[in-house]
Amino acid sequence: MNGFAPEISNQYVVDLDKHVFHSWSVQESAPPIAIASAQGCSLWDFEGKQYLDFSSQLVNTNIGHQHPKVIDAIKAQAETLVTIAPATANVTRGEAAKRILDRAPDHFKKVFFTNAGADANENAIRMARQFTGRDKVLSAYRSYHGNTGSAIAATGDFRRVPNEYSRGHVHFFNPYLYRTEFNAQTEQQECERALQHLKRVIECEGPNAIAAIILETIPGTAGFLLPPEGYLQGVRELATEHGIQLIFDEVMVGFGRTGRWFAFEHFNVVPDLITFAKGVNSGYVPAGGVVISEPISEYFKSNFFMGGLTYSGHPLAMSAIVATLDAMEEEGIVRYADEVGNNILGPALIELMEKHETIGDIRGKGMFWALELVESRATREPLSNSKIASMKSKFAEKGLLTFIVNNRIHVAPPLIIKPNEIAQGVAIISQVLAEFD
Amino acid sequence: MNGFAPEISNQYVVDLDKHVFHSWSVQESAPPIAIASAQGCSLWDFEGKQYLDFSSQLVNTNIGHQHPKVIDAIKAQAETLVTIAPATANVTRGEAAKRILDRAPDHFKKVFFTNAGADANENAIRMARQFTGRDKVLSAYRSYHGNTGSAIAATGDFRRVPNEYSRGHVHFFNPYLYRTEFNAQTEQQECERALQHLKRVIECEGPNAIAAIILETIPGTAGFLLPPEGYLQGVRELATEHGIQLIFDEVMVGFGRTGRWFAFEHFNVVPDLITFAKGVNSGYVPAGGVVISEPISEYFKSNFFMGGLTYSGHPLAMSAIVATLDAMEEEGIVRYADEVGNNILGPALIELMEKHETIGDIRGKGMFWALELVESRATREPLSNSKIASMKSKFAEKGLLTFIVNNRIHVAPPLIIKPNEIAQGVAIISQVLAEFD
Repeated sequence: MNGFAPEISNQYVVDLDKHVFHSWSVQESAPPIAIASAQGCSLWDFEGKQYLDFSSQLVNTNIGHQHPKVIDAIKAQAETLVTIAPATANVTRGEAAKRILDRAPDHFKKVFFTNAGADANENAIRMARQFTGRDKVLSAYRSYHGNTGSAIAATGDFRRVPNEYSRGHVHFFNPYLYRTEFNAQTEQQECERALQHLKRVIECEGPNAIAAIILETIPGTAGFLLPPEGYLQGVRELATEHGIQLIFDEVMVGFGRTGRWFAFEHFNVVPDLITFAKGVNSGYVPAGGVVISEPISEYFKSNFFMGGLTYSGHPLAMSAIVATLDAMEEEGIVRYADEVGNNILGPALIELMEKHETIGDIRGKGMFWALELVESRATREPLSNSKIASMKSKFAEKGLLTFIVNNRIHVAPPLIIKPNEIAQGVAIISQVLAEFD
Repeated sequence: MNGFAPEISNQYVVDLDKHVFHSWSVQESAPPIAIASAQGCSLWDFEGKQYLDFSSQLVNTNIGHQHPKVIDAIKAQAETLVTIAPATANVTRGEAAKRILDRAPDHFKKVFFTNAGADANENAIRMARQFTGRDKVLSAYRSYHGNTGSAIAATGDFRRVPNEYSRGHVHFFNPYLYRTEFNAQTEQQECERALQHLKRVIECEGPNAIAAIILETIPGTAGFLLPPEGYLQGVRELATEHGIQLIFDEVMVGFGRTGRWFAFEHFNVVPDLITFAKGVNSGYVPAGGVVISEPISEYFKSNFFMGGLTYSGHPLAMSAIVATLDAMEEEGIVRYADEVGNNILGPALIELMEKHETIGDIRGKGMFWALELVESRATREPLSNSKIASMKSKFAEKGLLTFIVNNRIHVAPPLIIKPNEIAQGVAIISQVLAEFD
């Protein structure tokens, strides 16, 4: 019994889904999986088939599915005050901001809430541009910061003018030793050459023209590209030297994913703006935001901020943030992710590499690991798209939900995953990989 | 008793709010109003002061505050399955899409869900560009379509390339007789000249280079600029002639606001893409989306759609859509908005214009009216910013929440507002205006 009316079957839901247009896909590709319910790291379809969530959906359900404290908080907020305009003062919003600031370095003073990660990055860039009076923004080729880019250009009224930055976005190469752009042989070489490259891009673009450098602290969708020791410090120094605001995009890696509240804690570097979404409330209600440094907070005390959105600080999303962060604290979930991720999940995956030639490289930290799949370890040629597609459907058949990007399996389960669930998921990966070695 | 702990006072909440960075404002302007609870068209602060919501917050709570059926649906969905990735088939998402399509012309076949209005417009523009293979987009100067514009430019990976449209956005003048750009004397002249202007812009930009024209069906924030008879038909003909996709932004005017499910029903014109947010679920959970014509739906059956977002079709938002649209249907809310808006609210505001010299023009339909405030009816000079600011705080003092943009009061109460509440709100407006005549 799944609690649904008996006529609601997988087929019924898949048929109904024909009304829905899906993200990032050909609409008539393989039919989607119908999910009826979920708990912890497990999901079930309408016929009782169980799936193990090895990707936290899109790397968002850090706290697992249907956490009772968060569900209760959402229900209580819905009964009290489900929505209110952002211009008001709202107690739940204030509590959510306070909890986020409590987890960030002292340097941060205010939180601006958005609907998700893309508009978090939009507004961090906007703040950096307004604050510096500069226009250009630098970011890495191997990155994903969201896919919004035209609504403000379409807007005709006065709010467009200070916001239409059609020029001035420049990309540089970030470090990635396994597929180095710098002919580097070691992490240290990769770091030095990547910093020299960035320094030259800054010089050539004009240091005084650059408002911000935005970087995922650890690039996520790009394949968990752990920056080499010293790289982020080097970027911080370049930014500070030229008055460039440093934005760390922590949408995917923030709030416990790497065994820290923020991934930048691993590197002893503090940015000027932090963007977040996903893990902050496990995506139970859409939310994202920007954590703002003291100087930028001060600037906007007397300068008009030229941005905003209808659902900024939506009470329902805020209630999920408050309950998620409290539960994570009470239940020691970040420490658990650190320990179990590095001591059980990581070693189990590294062991896989010894067994399977298809794995060319493995990188990770805490509860986020990337397996890079190759045709040959010697050439490092990425595993073909057709093999990847076939692999993906085999995982689903065997009840494992994975996050596959290009030639990589991203292993990013809920932070609460149990050792036996890790063993189960890793075994399925091993079975499937064996067919491709 | 407001159900909160006794130490939670207005001051406590305003103090806590210092952690929050607010939309579209100087952060240290007047302290925000603290709202404890709401019901129907009323809100209360923590000391029991009552406010009448004459703006539906940001023109989103069409169904009023805390509608029990929608609250219950949100709670039930939270218990069943609070979140799930967009790639799955979800029964509530299918039901929400179906209900939206049921209210749109037959021509529409699929719904893509986003987090709000800005990303709805982002994705409608993206679809039009991919579908036509063209780049340019035309929109009106007097418009607001959201304020996102840089996340995709910041993104470095392959998803940026088909999406980075830094060139090719062109603005034109839309009709607005009260402040005509065309030296028109009559609505008919304004219509003809505005269409001739748009025709010339299309010719000069190159008809085959233009992917889309995006227009708010009735420009909202710009001051409820009701298009003259024949204008939207004329735009539709120009678009059809040149294979340009017509996008109607119904974020503010859709879902009952003007006494129709969609505002374009007033004009006997059908667009190719409809964008929505706000009223679709009264903003109870952040949501927006795009309703997609048959040809565009067909195109993407075999072509990869280069867009998406983590919370597309979020179950909690979907549950609020299903319950909101069902409740609106069952309770006849759209018809009520049509009747009470046009027969009671509109006439009461028009009567105000006879009493108050400060009102230069009034425009509206259903439950959305704009009062244009002027220094002098003869010169039509907009009322000064300082008078507007002072007026706004007087409204709040007297317990009326209003939506004031530039020199205009936008009257847009929940669609369920009762005649006595209308009388009460209009009386406050009259009292305050009397001080400025």
